[in-house]
Amino acid sequence: MSKRIGIQTVKFETKPKIIAAESIVGPKEGAGPLKDYFDIILSDDLNGKESFEKAECSMIYNVITEVIRKAKLKETDIDFLFAGDLLNQISSSNFAARELEIPFYGLYGACSTMTESLGIAAMTIEGEFADHAIAATSSHFSSSERQFRFPLEFGSQRKPNSQWTVTGAGAMLLGRKGDHPCITYATTGKVKDYGISSPDSMGEAMAPAAVDTLKQHFKDTGRKPTDYDLIATGDLGKVGRQITAELLKKEYGYDISNVYMDCGEKIFDCEKQNTNSGGSGCGCSAVVDCGYIYKNILKGKYKKVLLVSTGALMSTTATLQGESIPGIAHAVSIEFGGVKK
Amino acid sequence: MSKRIGIQTVKFETKPKIIAAESIVGPKEGAGPLKDYFDIILSDDLNGKESFEKAECSMIYNVITEVIRKAKLKETDIDFLFAGDLLNQISSSNFAARELEIPFYGLYGACSTMTESLGIAAMTIEGEFADHAIAATSSHFSSSERQFRFPLEFGSQRKPNSQWTVTGAGAMLLGRKGDHPCITYATTGKVKDYGISSPDSMGEAMAPAAVDTLKQHFKDTGRKPTDYDLIATGDLGKVGRQITAELLKKEYGYDISNVYMDCGEKIFDCEKQNTNSGGSGCGCSAVVDCGYIYKNILKGKYKKVLLVSTGALMSTTATLQGESIPGIAHAVSIEFGGVKK
Repeated sequence: MSKRIGIQTVKFETKPKIIAAESIVGPKEGAGPLKDYFDIILSDDLNGKESFEKAECSMIYNVITEVIRKAKLKETDIDFLFAGDLLNQISSSNFAARELEIPFYGLYGACSTMTESLGIAAMTIEGEFADHAIAATSSHFSSSERQFRFPLEFGSQRKPNSQWTVTGAGAMLLGRKGDHPCITYATTGKVKDYGISSPDSMGEAMAPAAVDTLKQHFKDTGRKPTDYDLIATGDLGKVGRQITAELLKKEYGYDISNVYMDCGEKIFDCEKQNTNSGGSGCGCSAVVDCGYIYKNILKGKYKKVLLVSTGALMSTTATLQGESIPGIAHAVSIEFGGVKK
Repeated sequence: MSKRIGIQTVKFETKPKIIAAESIVGPKEGAGPLKDYFDIILSDDLNGKESFEKAECSMIYNVITEVIRKAKLKETDIDFLFAGDLLNQISSSNFAARELEIPFYGLYGACSTMTESLGIAAMTIEGEFADHAIAATSSHFSSSERQFRFPLEFGSQRKPNSQWTVTGAGAMLLGRKGDHPCITYATTGKVKDYGISSPDSMGEAMAPAAVDTLKQHFKDTGRKPTDYDLIATGDLGKVGRQITAELLKKEYGYDISNVYMDCGEKIFDCEKQNTNSGGSGCGCSAVVDCGYIYKNILKGKYKKVLLVSTGALMSTTATLQGESIPGIAHAVSIEFGGVKK
């Protein structure tokens, strides 16, 4: 009997458990509306390192080692680490993995990496390939800006629809046993491209992918938007969130408006914090999922959540060659009947 | 009952089948000693495109669509595509996936991507998450040189231990049924770093990772080197191959010399073709595995093969910040009792 249902969805019968989650953010994120939900708030976004890249690496290393400690496990208890980030050659993840004695598969899904890593990790638990697996990702405002856009020193103006890359990292540790929030479905996305080519318009570039994955998740599972307490896209920002909700209703008749939030819109007070359309980056959905959402699931506020991290598969080389920005989104549903203090 | 054995290895009980494999190479690879084993040899390494990046993308797209055709399947029969490449943001894979209606997970394992994608794809088949999955990767000499080293126009001299990035792409299509070569074990690597920092010394950077994964594969499975007809590392080149064989014997007592080849050394006539230590790049182990090795398995020449693609997790940003080059290697064993014409 296949665990595949519909066209793009895996149904997890053994319901892999999220034993622990850990989040770390920079000072700006730590001054935002979700500040009470993050495990660690850095006072300095260099985290005592010599470069922003090394700071980012230290953050993802930090959440991985902390989530292992929280779960009362050892590094050698972890069978797989699935991780990726925004930097060329996912160097934050690679260099963090270098310090860890954990079998490692590197991923690249841009800002969709949290649910990409979570979906694959859940399959390794369900398939009995692992007793414990970690899904992790990170991003850093300053390492991203200079790689994808302009060096900060250039002082370029930000457009109203532009987003602010979150400085943060998140990790979830999955296992087979215990009374924890569990993963019930994973819907894997396809790459969608509607011709957006400006690196300031990532929400617009990713929205069609979010719509496609959400639509397919509902079709494959037979669920409706109201079956969820919360549907959280990754980092579409204010602009992308509106497009997603409208397109999904108009094209496919699914109205998610009552249960819908976007992590990128939620993480900052966009007006006061001057982040325009909101947060972005792998770290955005990672810290909101591992911080705000996971903790509210434990508290019983949310019982059924659909996480939909969204990635803009942007490449400066491709953009210089006239290419548009393809998007992708992966959905993972998390459920928990209990309440934990 | 867990399918995990030892510390880093998954044992596949249902033995996922490699239904078909496809390879494409550039003119230089097509003039080398393995030329008779590749499915497509390009006469022009631009493949009719405007840039080397677009040419690389067309190559990986080509092997994916061709391997589906060979297996007499349709795009919509494929449940997962696992792919990655060397370009920043794995843009070849992302842009190829954009043209395909296949749920897609992007990977980054540098030149270890062939066995990374194969190992994960095999788990999705064994775990009944997919009926069919594709593992694919690519690299291109000219897109890699300018990204990782110097623009070709610069005309920099190549060192004796330097390697030549293979222009090529390979794909394997996995399924559950039929009389085909099957995957029996996957040993996932850990990141290893012995302090090599020159981008001309990739074989040396990757050798410790290859040694570590090979040692662990033998320990976890209880197999000996002589249980295999062929052990093929990915792209260590002449220099890295010698280090690997020597270290493995000296440190752990495993003598693989009688069954050992390196895809990077084998793909070129290094002296005549002026490729110094040999080939490298994701495409190197991909085309040798999908071309030479897979076809010789079908012919009955090899009955038990261990593929060990090796990745140098090199980042120019990290190198400029004084970092060394970490390496990783993943092993996948393929077995076939039959003979196919």
